[in-house]
Amino acid sequence: MTENLENQSQDNLEASLAQVQSLLAKMRLVEELVHKQGGPRQALVENLVHKQNLSELQRKLEELHPADVAYILEALPLDERRLVWGQVKAECDGEILLEVSDSVRESLIQMMDKAELLAAAESLDTDEIADIAADLPHDVIQDLLTSLDAQKRAHLQSALAYPEDTVGALMDFEMVTIRVDVTLEVALRYLRRLGELPDQLDKLFVVGRDDRIIGVLPLKRLLTTDPEVSVAAVMVEDFVKFHPEDEAQEAAQAFERYDLVMAPVVDAQGRLIGRLTVDAVLDYIRESADADMLSMAGLKEEEDLFSSVWRSAKNRWMWLAVNLATAFIASRVIGAFEGSIEKLAALAALMPIIAGIGGNTGNQTIALIVRGLALGQITQANARRLVLKELGVALFNGLLWGSVVGVFAWLLYDNLALGGVMALAMLLNLIVAALAGIFIPMTLERMKRDPAVGSSVLLTFTTDSMGFFIFLGLATVLLL
Amino acid sequence: MTENLENQSQDNLEASLAQVQSLLAKMRLVEELVHKQGGPRQALVENLVHKQNLSELQRKLEELHPADVAYILEALPLDERRLVWGQVKAECDGEILLEVSDSVRESLIQMMDKAELLAAAESLDTDEIADIAADLPHDVIQDLLTSLDAQKRAHLQSALAYPEDTVGALMDFEMVTIRVDVTLEVALRYLRRLGELPDQLDKLFVVGRDDRIIGVLPLKRLLTTDPEVSVAAVMVEDFVKFHPEDEAQEAAQAFERYDLVMAPVVDAQGRLIGRLTVDAVLDYIRESADADMLSMAGLKEEEDLFSSVWRSAKNRWMWLAVNLATAFIASRVIGAFEGSIEKLAALAALMPIIAGIGGNTGNQTIALIVRGLALGQITQANARRLVLKELGVALFNGLLWGSVVGVFAWLLYDNLALGGVMALAMLLNLIVAALAGIFIPMTLERMKRDPAVGSSVLLTFTTDSMGFFIFLGLATVLLL
Repeated sequence: MTENLENQSQDNLEASLAQVQSLLAKMRLVEELVHKQGGPRQALVENLVHKQNLSELQRKLEELHPADVAYILEALPLDERRLVWGQVKAECDGEILLEVSDSVRESLIQMMDKAELLAAAESLDTDEIADIAADLPHDVIQDLLTSLDAQKRAHLQSALAYPEDTVGALMDFEMVTIRVDVTLEVALRYLRRLGELPDQLDKLFVVGRDDRIIGVLPLKRLLTTDPEVSVAAVMVEDFVKFHPEDEAQEAAQAFERYDLVMAPVVDAQGRLIGRLTVDAVLDYIRESADADMLSMAGLKEEEDLFSSVWRSAKNRWMWLAVNLATAFIASRVIGAFEGSIEKLAALAALMPIIAGIGGNTGNQTIALIVRGLALGQITQANARRLVLKELGVALFNGLLWGSVVGVFAWLLYDNLALGGVMALAMLLNLIVAALAGIFIPMTLERMKRDPAVGSSVLLTFTTDSMGFFIFLGLATVLLL
Repeated sequence: MTENLENQSQDNLEASLAQVQSLLAKMRLVEELVHKQGGPRQALVENLVHKQNLSELQRKLEELHPADVAYILEALPLDERRLVWGQVKAECDGEILLEVSDSVRESLIQMMDKAELLAAAESLDTDEIADIAADLPHDVIQDLLTSLDAQKRAHLQSALAYPEDTVGALMDFEMVTIRVDVTLEVALRYLRRLGELPDQLDKLFVVGRDDRIIGVLPLKRLLTTDPEVSVAAVMVEDFVKFHPEDEAQEAAQAFERYDLVMAPVVDAQGRLIGRLTVDAVLDYIRESADADMLSMAGLKEEEDLFSSVWRSAKNRWMWLAVNLATAFIASRVIGAFEGSIEKLAALAALMPIIAGIGGNTGNQTIALIVRGLALGQITQANARRLVLKELGVALFNGLLWGSVVGVFAWLLYDNLALGGVMALAMLLNLIVAALAGIFIPMTLERMKRDPAVGSSVLLTFTTDSMGFFIFLGLATVLLL
């Protein structure tokens, strides 16, 4: 696949999208005209023009790589997506389903009947079927399993058996193995007989008896070494391998650290099961970075840009409900000081500053800690140093910016004591923010929760409630 | 490099870090003991033990891959980092400097003198020198340029000439070219004569006269085709290529879409300049995802976990100042309604709910839009549909959650009108949030600014100020 494609730069791609969009707009226009004017003559013209447009659309789609069709489908609202999807050649359906995002895949699968789905799935490799299996109807999977031969069925079942974020879910089965006791000459002849090699193959797996992998033979060694030499003499015995139950996240880090293109996946006995390639790792890294960003912003899962209002709303509720609950509590903290606010309404105007800046600085700390935790760089041994450093930054910023807001409040309300309370509250809330910014993600991590997801809500809740409490409490005690 | 390494899983890596940390703790302990007890005898013992510990540390570090030493250095506070860095073998310095993050690299370079820096840089390839050049002192770069031979100097200068986020800054120069008019047999002999091939090489570049690239020959075709055949007959003429001024971001998307391992980089005339490999792309994707996350949280640049308080504080100021300014303005909006708040202090307790939920829902919209913009999926043609959908979600959520908060306020304060104002304000602020969530990132994008960075501050500013204004304004008009 890598080699047979048009050279699509991003600009070309956006141009293709624009072409498809303008074709669709033309089609809509013709339709509207006929609906307005009616009459059999118009209907006939419309029909002709419509057919012309459709075949132009088909031609355009045929020129494109499946990944590019996927890109265009992602950018279309549901009705237009349905129209375009209907014009895609059936033999490309599988590839395209593989390339689109989960949420868009769901929408496409809903537009297909069982026979189409079966045909699409059958055009894919077993590891690829496994990637989209979660979105396929149960009976399609059943039919697929019966239609596959024994080896492929076993592959599919094993790929389906591993949970999402593991190496097992990312691996494929397209590998080339050779025996350790042959010469390079024999290996070269074997490859020529195979006729075609899988993509992203940069090494052969060298196996002994029992399918146990005992080394790897990089293609570049095969190409640069005298063919008379034996595989055993040039193979590399110290190589990176993974187990199917390894975390995908850690495998991705190994690919980055050691600049891998592919690596074998083996079972506990060292027997070869499959391989992990850098393109699967790249897709995984991109998808999990996207998912992190979306979940940090409070979306339950990846959301189709053009999903229905109802689906979108559901995707955002959980987070909204949590935020509402924490906002209620913070509101009750303020409620406890309503007496003070009645006497000095300036407190109401100033309190959001204290709470807001606390939230902002705390989130800065969280971003650093979450990243350090993801890279495994925060340990018992250095946590104390981190706390001291963040407290130092909080003290420093608290004194500096606390003075700024203090002077602001003093000048604005001509009330020196109010300015003092403001400055002190700012300092204290920044210290709360620093501590919360470290301990919340570290506690989530220790509870085996994803620190990237919940940290920010919990922190904002803490800095809001504590900010209001500290400021209004100090004001009540010192000013009133 | 890929092949000669220990099989370091994440667990092993964390174990190595723990070993180094416990060694360092032991060394600190011995030092403290001697300082307390004094005396020449103790000093002698200390000296011996210290030397033993140091050599154990050296042994441990020698076992590790440079990428793993880099990982350990990142996780150490400055004083310990200095100690460990001093024990690393000089010939690994360059590789390690390449692997650490920008901020940690700065700290390491500050610990080295000019001669060490020169030696470290000279151990690297020219494209690698270019990667760390931004952190090297100016005179070291000058000395390097004079010490390199003409071709390498030209490479370094051209790599230095391209701005950070372009293909030119990521490319390297390790490629293998063959002439179009030879047979595969000749190509195979040529490779054998070369003796060694660069990492991540999955194809040869086929050039005609003038160094113009006219095709690529995938190694897998070279391996599976009859050697008598000519290069011209099996080369692929339709291949992905890049220009050095292309955006790195777009090249990364092409690598993902087309599952590339490497691709040629050519000038405007189609002459070969260098190549882009998937490991450079992988590092780029990870770094830019990290940078996005940190800058969304308001850190100016990547921050060393253990940088000094002063440097950290500076890194966080700009954002803090911006937030403070917007918080002041929001505070003045409340200030304008102090009269209303004096009469009904409940308003002060309830207003943060309206502002906060507006900010949360707006940030959900922003996350989707920023992602869509990054993928180039939001266009003039579909923007209107997006606005309608987001307004639909806002209306839906506004009616639902507006009713919830309305009932809450009504029951809490036994004031039906207050509940009504609360519900209406919530609905209106969610509509404001949806519109701001779309238009702020789209406007930043049109102004050629990064929509990921500033959007969230501007949005929170909008939803806070408008939230306070809508709620307090409605309350003043309808309740008082």
